[in-house]
Amino acid sequence: MNTTNKNSPNISYISVSQMQRILQKIGTEHFIAGIVEYLEQDFAKWESFDKSPRFAAHSPDGVIELMPIGDHEKFSFKYVNGHPKNTASGLQTVIAFGVLSDVDTGYPLLLSEMTILTALRTAATSVMMAKYLARKDSKTLALIGCGAQSEFQAIAFINMLGIKTIRLYDTDPEAIKKCYNNLKNRDVHIVLCTSAEEVVQDADIITTCTADKKNATILTSDMVTAGVHVNAIGGDCPGKTELEAKLLERADVFIEYEPQTRIEGDIQQLPEDSPVTEMFKVIRGDRDGRTSDEQITIFDGVGFAIEDYSALRYVYDLVSNNESCQQLELLASPSNPRNLYGLAMTSAE
Amino acid sequence: MNTTNKNSPNISYISVSQMQRILQKIGTEHFIAGIVEYLEQDFAKWESFDKSPRFAAHSPDGVIELMPIGDHEKFSFKYVNGHPKNTASGLQTVIAFGVLSDVDTGYPLLLSEMTILTALRTAATSVMMAKYLARKDSKTLALIGCGAQSEFQAIAFINMLGIKTIRLYDTDPEAIKKCYNNLKNRDVHIVLCTSAEEVVQDADIITTCTADKKNATILTSDMVTAGVHVNAIGGDCPGKTELEAKLLERADVFIEYEPQTRIEGDIQQLPEDSPVTEMFKVIRGDRDGRTSDEQITIFDGVGFAIEDYSALRYVYDLVSNNESCQQLELLASPSNPRNLYGLAMTSAE
Repeated sequence: MNTTNKNSPNISYISVSQMQRILQKIGTEHFIAGIVEYLEQDFAKWESFDKSPRFAAHSPDGVIELMPIGDHEKFSFKYVNGHPKNTASGLQTVIAFGVLSDVDTGYPLLLSEMTILTALRTAATSVMMAKYLARKDSKTLALIGCGAQSEFQAIAFINMLGIKTIRLYDTDPEAIKKCYNNLKNRDVHIVLCTSAEEVVQDADIITTCTADKKNATILTSDMVTAGVHVNAIGGDCPGKTELEAKLLERADVFIEYEPQTRIEGDIQQLPEDSPVTEMFKVIRGDRDGRTSDEQITIFDGVGFAIEDYSALRYVYDLVSNNESCQQLELLASPSNPRNLYGLAMTSAE
Repeated sequence: MNTTNKNSPNISYISVSQMQRILQKIGTEHFIAGIVEYLEQDFAKWESFDKSPRFAAHSPDGVIELMPIGDHEKFSFKYVNGHPKNTASGLQTVIAFGVLSDVDTGYPLLLSEMTILTALRTAATSVMMAKYLARKDSKTLALIGCGAQSEFQAIAFINMLGIKTIRLYDTDPEAIKKCYNNLKNRDVHIVLCTSAEEVVQDADIITTCTADKKNATILTSDMVTAGVHVNAIGGDCPGKTELEAKLLERADVFIEYEPQTRIEGDIQQLPEDSPVTEMFKVIRGDRDGRTSDEQITIFDGVGFAIEDYSALRYVYDLVSNNESCQQLELLASPSNPRNLYGLAMTSAE
């Protein structure tokens, strides 16, 4: 009895090892540039997305979230947790994986690790925004916070914005050293700093990517001079901010998705009607990004589901076109859909 | 540089082939009985579950759903689509997979195919309900609808309720033949019928599991005699019903979860305040199930997320204790969580 459908489509599977292999083959900078291309395509068709609120299951020690999003072509969701106490037992605070599906058939196409991929898409998002918001002659990037995201940010800005000098600061000297070691072979001048005040000296772009979950003031208004672009990505949930409110009031603020950023972004400190610009309008040319060399611009980034969608779409096209990858046999396909029992009783191959 | 955490927990992975292997080794009837045990445990602690509405992404040709649920120990979600036009291109209308996670750490534990598993858990749910609702001396089961679910239902009832005679009917004679062939080697008397009126003769339990998406009247009140239990599982979404309203009014109706069944179940035909009993109360002993041999009972089943949770929990315990299975390396675990870039640059094993 032929109960197995030979057309049974499998799911492409990107393990952590496979992500490492692809990344090292392509190069982190080119991988990020690839995602940027997909991000610009997807932000440009912003209205076609069904932008649902994330689903969150809270427990005493953490949260498990599902972040779904889709348009008329593809659907994706990311599974991501947040359990600060995990580090005490040698586990990660945050791990993530995601699925990309074909809307036309409802079939999943790709299952991918997203712990590394989220860092890549976050850097890709930052650099895409900076293309529209930073001065074209930007040469110096200051990084406040040398954690998990820092090297990806640095590499993206070196490659796509022509950054020649990177200034590093973290409250933990070990983190600065780690970041320096990961970047030292790149074609960039690296300056190690001992305070936030020092690191922002002469910076054209200031990236804040600190991890403390509190309303911190990492960057005050008096530290930021005219013409600077601030890439603020560490303040990304209620009660977690990095910028002084006065700085936000003084600058032009650009965001991903207003309903989400009002709750999660640095602008949670401002009134509900404070002026902001959603970046898809800038990308589409409907609104201005930077308009003068004196303007202070801020990208108040929180991470939005479309960015996961773009990243998964990029990886899927990559493995469909160039890279071989494992296939998961996760979808039962009886040749006669009504004979599922017959399929269940077929000997496994 | 040691960037890979050797404690990196992998995810147990149940492919379709692995599900086939486990099922054939354990036996369908014992597998279903195993799920019943987990279902009773989980229904008994009903209030401890965070019962969220499912997330649904609708498109012109179908729907993609995520069904999350969790208590303080485990979290699960099922991905399931519904695309009727898929059959025309040799694909399945419905495919499903699911994930079980540890709430304490947020880490996923199991990724499993759920096309076959959903059929098993649906049969397990039906037979668990019938334990409380059918007459103890039930010997004859009538099956109206011989589709994908039929054999699983039949095997569950033969094994757990002592059914000796199965009467089969479907509008398509090929479906009856398929069901007969799949059941003929079981220790049960099988009667093939040519109409719904014929198949219900002398039945103690009537199972309706038809597939037509419309408000059909598969079973009318005059076809059902005193003392019968009706296991109605085909009517499971708005606009899809199987029972005559008069029959529902005449019987005692038992359901899974009232907010969902009012929308999806056969009781969508009745007023919002029609009397129903949620089964967790019966399982806990707070409410009566069957109280007399004359009573007509109906389980108006629509399929609820807790049942997926129980099924995934059963499979996870099975593979943790007895069965070997593949592991997915889906979770990046840098030994220094702030050195994610270092992990990304580590050579894959």
